[in-house]
Amino acid sequence: MSYFEKFLTTNQAYAALHGTAHLPLKPKTQVAIVTCMDSRLHVAPALGLALGDAHILRNAGGRVTEDMIRSLVISQQQMGTREIVVLHHTDCGAQTFTNEAFADHIQQELGVDVAGQDFLPFTDVEESVRADMAILRQSDLIPDDVIISGAVYDVDTGLMTEVR
Amino acid sequence: MSYFEKFLTTNQAYAALHGTAHLPLKPKTQVAIVTCMDSRLHVAPALGLALGDAHILRNAGGRVTEDMIRSLVISQQQMGTREIVVLHHTDCGAQTFTNEAFADHIQQELGVDVAGQDFLPFTDVEESVRADMAILRQSDLIPDDVIISGAVYDVDTGLMTEVR
Repeated sequence: MSYFEKFLTTNQAYAALHGTAHLPLKPKTQVAIVTCMDSRLHVAPALGLALGDAHILRNAGGRVTEDMIRSLVISQQQMGTREIVVLHHTDCGAQTFTNEAFADHIQQELGVDVAGQDFLPFTDVEESVRADMAILRQSDLIPDDVIISGAVYDVDTGLMTEVR
Repeated sequence: MSYFEKFLTTNQAYAALHGTAHLPLKPKTQVAIVTCMDSRLHVAPALGLALGDAHILRNAGGRVTEDMIRSLVISQQQMGTREIVVLHHTDCGAQTFTNEAFADHIQQELGVDVAGQDFLPFTDVEESVRADMAILRQSDLIPDDVIISGAVYDVDTGLMTEVR
């Protein structure tokens, strides 16, 4: 049995409590959170978000990639968000490898050559937040009046600390 | 006052209840969920996920982009996930525009030419799930024995329905 089947069963209980209600497509707080896929970070409860409050964007590392920019432009231009929070975290999987070692591993495991591809690892989590905030600030596609903040989430304590 | 400052305050209350506990970096269920940034979908409660259970990846539409593949390869090869769920949803922002109209809007609002760029809109949500499952199945970077499932989440009822 796959976990997917378990999720479908659990979801039926969730839907029974959810009831039927139509919330607007546009997020109430006009905020988009850019963060990591990590399993130990549940964004909505950690930030106090209710259903309908904010867009939540997640990839490996919470990095500002071209696809993140695509998503943020849609978030802002189609759905009215005006603030971005870049939230990275302690003990991140993106801190566990280098591009070179990872490419060797992929070659060995999958027989695929990904040499030269940047998988966006980092070593210093505050620096990675600052680097991604800088990409957003420099992007022509993100208006200058959008509020951009950054923070690090501690997966052991649940505490979020601002990065300036 | 930005919402970010409010999130920091709310997060202090969350962290006080969180306590200190170190969960493993590798997700317990070995599942990665690929879904949309939509504010009305809170993935963890909707699927019954506890902290530490599964990777959650989110972009505009929940589309399988190159950055999603990057993230999934890290999820699988560095952190041991072996199952992927593609979860799109009703009333999606990706159903509200065409690439052409969106490029015109960006040109007008931001003065940036994005003509020719695919922002990955879709019309039929079941078809978009199938298209993204197909991209995963065809990718050299996703092993053939990875379990791939798809579903649509109804943002009005909270119910998730399998797509085959």
